[in-house]
Amino acid sequence: MGGHAVDSDTVFSNYQAVTSKTFVVSLMCEFIGVMVFTFLGSTVSDKVFGPWVNGLALAIWIYTAANISGGHLNPAVTFSTLICGFYPLIHSILYIFLQIVGAIFGALLVAALIPDAHVSMGDGAPGCFDNTVIGKGLTHSQLFGWEVVMTFTLISVVYACGVAKPGHGSFTPLVVGLSLVACAGTGGKWTGAALNPARVIGPLAVFKCGNNVAYIYILAHLLAAVLACSIFAFVSGWGPLSPFQSMKQLGLSWNEAVLMWITGSPPKRFQDNDEQNITDVLAKQAKQQEREEAEEDGLPVHKDQA
Amino acid sequence: MGGHAVDSDTVFSNYQAVTSKTFVVSLMCEFIGVMVFTFLGSTVSDKVFGPWVNGLALAIWIYTAANISGGHLNPAVTFSTLICGFYPLIHSILYIFLQIVGAIFGALLVAALIPDAHVSMGDGAPGCFDNTVIGKGLTHSQLFGWEVVMTFTLISVVYACGVAKPGHGSFTPLVVGLSLVACAGTGGKWTGAALNPARVIGPLAVFKCGNNVAYIYILAHLLAAVLACSIFAFVSGWGPLSPFQSMKQLGLSWNEAVLMWITGSPPKRFQDNDEQNITDVLAKQAKQQEREEAEEDGLPVHKDQA
Amino acid sequence: MGGHAVDSDTVFSNYQAVTSKTFVVSLMCEFIGVMVFTFLGSTVSDKVFGPWVNGLALAIWIYTAANISGGHLNPAVTFSTLICGFYPLIHSILYIFLQIVGAIFGALLVAALIPDAHVSMGDGAPGCFDNTVIGKGLTHSQLFGWEVVMTFTLISVVYACGVAKPGHGSFTPLVVGLSLVACAGTGGKWTGAALNPARVIGPLAVFKCGNNVAYIYILAHLLAAVLACSIFAFVSGWGPLSPFQSMKQLGLSWNEAVLMWITGSPPKRFQDNDEQNITDVLAKQAKQQEREEAEEDGLPVHKDQA
Amino acid sequence: MGGHAVDSDTVFSNYQAVTSKTFVVSLMCEFIGVMVFTFLGSTVSDKVFGPWVNGLALAIWIYTAANISGGHLNPAVTFSTLICGFYPLIHSILYIFLQIVGAIFGALLVAALIPDAHVSMGDGAPGCFDNTVIGKGLTHSQLFGWEVVMTFTLISVVYACGVAKPGHGSFTPLVVGLSLVACAGTGGKWTGAALNPARVIGPLAVFKCGNNVAYIYILAHLLAAVLACSIFAFVSGWGPLSPFQSMKQLGLSWNEAVLMWITGSPPKRFQDNDEQNITDVLAKQAKQQEREEAEEDGLPVHKDQA
Repeated sequence: MGGHAVDSDTVFSNYQAVTSKTFVVSLMCEFIGVMVFTFLGSTVSDKVFGPWVNGLALAIWIYTAANISGGHLNPAVTFSTLICGFYPLIHSILYIFLQIVGAIFGALLVAALIPDAHVSMGDGAPGCFDNTVIGKGLTHSQLFGWEVVMTFTLISVVYACGVAKPGHGSFTPLVVGLSLVACAGTGGKWTGAALNPARVIGPLAVFKCGNNVAYIYILAHLLAAVLACSIFAFVSGWGPLSPFQSMKQLGLSWNEAVLMWITGSPPKRFQDNDEQNITDVLAKQAKQQEREEAEEDGLPVHKDQA
Repeated sequence: MGGHAVDSDTVFSNYQAVTSKTFVVSLMCEFIGVMVFTFLGSTVSDKVFGPWVNGLALAIWIYTAANISGGHLNPAVTFSTLICGFYPLIHSILYIFLQIVGAIFGALLVAALIPDAHVSMGDGAPGCFDNTVIGKGLTHSQLFGWEVVMTFTLISVVYACGVAKPGHGSFTPLVVGLSLVACAGTGGKWTGAALNPARVIGPLAVFKCGNNVAYIYILAHLLAAVLACSIFAFVSGWGPLSPFQSMKQLGLSWNEAVLMWITGSPPKRFQDNDEQNITDVLAKQAKQQEREEAEEDGLPVHKDQA
Repeated sequence: MGGHAVDSDTVFSNYQAVTSKTFVVSLMCEFIGVMVFTFLGSTVSDKVFGPWVNGLALAIWIYTAANISGGHLNPAVTFSTLICGFYPLIHSILYIFLQIVGAIFGALLVAALIPDAHVSMGDGAPGCFDNTVIGKGLTHSQLFGWEVVMTFTLISVVYACGVAKPGHGSFTPLVVGLSLVACAGTGGKWTGAALNPARVIGPLAVFKCGNNVAYIYILAHLLAAVLACSIFAFVSGWGPLSPFQSMKQLGLSWNEAVLMWITGSPPKRFQDNDEQNITDVLAKQAKQQEREEAEEDGLPVHKDQA
Repeated sequence: MGGHAVDSDTVFSNYQAVTSKTFVVSLMCEFIGVMVFTFLGSTVSDKVFGPWVNGLALAIWIYTAANISGGHLNPAVTFSTLICGFYPLIHSILYIFLQIVGAIFGALLVAALIPDAHVSMGDGAPGCFDNTVIGKGLTHSQLFGWEVVMTFTLISVVYACGVAKPGHGSFTPLVVGLSLVACAGTGGKWTGAALNPARVIGPLAVFKCGNNVAYIYILAHLLAAVLACSIFAFVSGWGPLSPFQSMKQLGLSWNEAVLMWITGSPPKRFQDNDEQNITDVLAKQAKQQEREEAEEDGLPVHKDQA
């Protein structure tokens, strides 16, 4: 296939050992991606391009990061893949930390490059989610509801296109970006359309804006992450790191299963070397099984079929 | 191929036994998809993003549902695939029922999350297709004509991209969504651009709006469904469940053929087990035939060629 | 690969024997496609969606027609593929005729479904290219220049994505549509952005508008068709029907070569049966050659590799 | 696979011997592409379509040029691939020269086809980057910062989608174009969103505009090119022409390595014939290695495995 399509595994559910260079590079990707996404999305001021700049900036940075870090770029996405068993706890904590630091640096860039913007300027600063962007007459419950529905939409797209098999390959980043365009195109005038805790925390930290509503946004994002994971687990089953799944699939004890969910590393007895993760182990098992079936059928086996 | 592309069969013409978990999940998908699509599409109030939010929300929810339910999300699409022989009657009735319930819940969500909106508020409520959205001077016949042309466009895209072979794989949901953007971009100002009976019935049930014109929209959608199916049947032939096709292809009696079109299950003599549907049966036959041809040619056979 | 991608051959350079059912269906596709494209593109009246409706309506109808008629939908495209040797003369004449008839029916649909529009209403009718859409101060030479540059862009995209190998498969219809969006987004305010003789002739025939400038548009489209073909022939060589190519490649006499360019049928001695076209003949030769090379290398040959 | 997807190698990092016809054609492609891109992008005057026309015109011309010249269309991209070791020095100089000449001809076309535009009209001419497009209150440092961030985004997308393996195949031109849409959608009102030295130099040469700020734009583009290359080299390693890489990979001396980076031709001892470039040499080595491994495993080898 010549490497021109993202494997469904890679997008949103790929991870490497914490000590590997690839993982350091992944963290850097999440940092840079969220930083520039926050900068571009925060500085757009007109109504006509607001949803487009946010959605397209997200899409292009997911494309850029997809084959390295999986292109989460959103603590709600990372949190959801964590609880659903696709991402280990340690990795998730580091991702979320770097995403938030990225958003803070993005907001600092806004303060540096927009005339009249300056640190600690309070509500109304570029990119803030505060009372100046919340629609007239919207109650806090409605604000919460809007952000839940929109974030649920975005994370459902992530699961269906980038985690489920068969997914939608290299379409995934585009579709995730377009889901932000669609949500921001209507919800933008009611909530500003955050859909991402880092986008709330970054400007809050730099501009001291939206202190009184930030928790509503963030709780909504986390609830949506749980909802999307629940439905995906019902539809397609838990991820391979979830103790519910790994105890059944690999016959692990509860302690082993929880440890694997925390560290991402399968117990030593399943690994040929130190850096193998659960995907490698499952792939090895699948290959072994395929080989056995092929031998039973008496058919030739191809080393690198597609 | 690593599962990164939707098989043409899957989109819009895939179905499972009514009693299978997959089918229950499919119904859930249609319900959630239409609910959120209706919510996002109904709440957009400005002229600049109306067509985009509707088209992109449709596209992303078809992407999300495509590999599970086929991503119909529209009773006119389901009705068309039913009469063309791609979807069984029982399945279609349940799909259409869930799509309409989804649209009603979507309209309820609108009532809950938009300030000043409330149940039974009548014409002019968000998402309604009533005299307040119909263009000045447009006659009822012209309203009917516009909705026929636009819905015919949308369903033709569904057939050409998602049912015909070769189709356009993972492009299909995007192209269907863009066809709604194109139609709503011009027809929106004349009819509001429904193209979907559920989108008409949902708000009507919740807000009591558009009572006097709803039937025009719905009849137009059904006529467009028949037109698109007729042309597709002329171009590419009937679907495998159509009695015209199954009597010829499998040698069924008229009664057997009609029963299969109703239930989706081929007569027992074609099935190895209870849950096999017509696609499985035809695939088995095709595989058998391919194997025979290969043996004649004396060539090696690959178990899982791409 | 499961048929989910358009083969580059199919898009824009596929054709069948004039007497085949496929060819009749192709003509029907060109007719319906141009009709609805003209209708949707003519009725959009606001500046914000004009380029989008035109570009997306073109894209979705090329998607719909691509695997049947090749999705020309534009006499300038057909004319260019004719002179470049990708499409036979008889087929091209019939395509262009049906495209123009489609555009006329599209304009009639406009007259029927837009309040206040009526046949023979003259300049200013919806979808017309006349002095009411030509930008203030634009000379006839500048009008000509704009349409040449824009149409050249559109046809170059057709060649590079849909005729050249490797091309861009199922991206092609989208890219062609986006090229119309880009051109109409800037040139729309100067010329109305026709890029298609049928779009000029259809409204002219129905509404009697633009009589004094139609020839400028059409000549510009034809010149752009010649320019795009010239550059493509320089870059990638003539098409297989071009006498320059077929005399060299198949060793035909001048008379045989011209006859093949007119009818699309290779001389009898190259055909196994009556309906084989040049693509089939060349594919047969290529397969034969591949088989010979494989035998030389002593490698196994796969019947249906990918 | 039928040639319907761009190989990741082809886009942005493909090159041919300077003396080959393909290279002449590549230069022509870069010239025409930048010319029409400059023309379309310069003439769009309304705020609603500015970012779209620029981004989509870039996307479609990259699609058109991708399989021939690699679709650079931007001296900053060429410069970045040069210093990162993906493009030879001689080729890069000729590319950049033709891109600038293309932009000048594009600006001349603007002067010819826009009423009231004329050569040497100074600041405010269509397509100029001068004080009339720079946002009120923006300092020169902020102008520099904006162009660095935006150009860095565009070139990062080029690397991640079109140079890295696995990349995103035929999605690449679209994603690059959308990155320009996203950047211009917000940065357009501050800097005009050039992201491309040729787009600055072309109008400057023809209209004599922006003399006092052009150097800021161009230095920003070059810095962004270096930044994007540095990060890519850290993440994925240097390109095959970089002396750092070729000394290690092919065991070249420093002089040989530098000569190869300048000319693009590997030392004679690695070539079977005069026109082989580094990609051919590496592909030959990879094939050789694959063959040896297959023989060790005792598995059959396929000649043209997808």
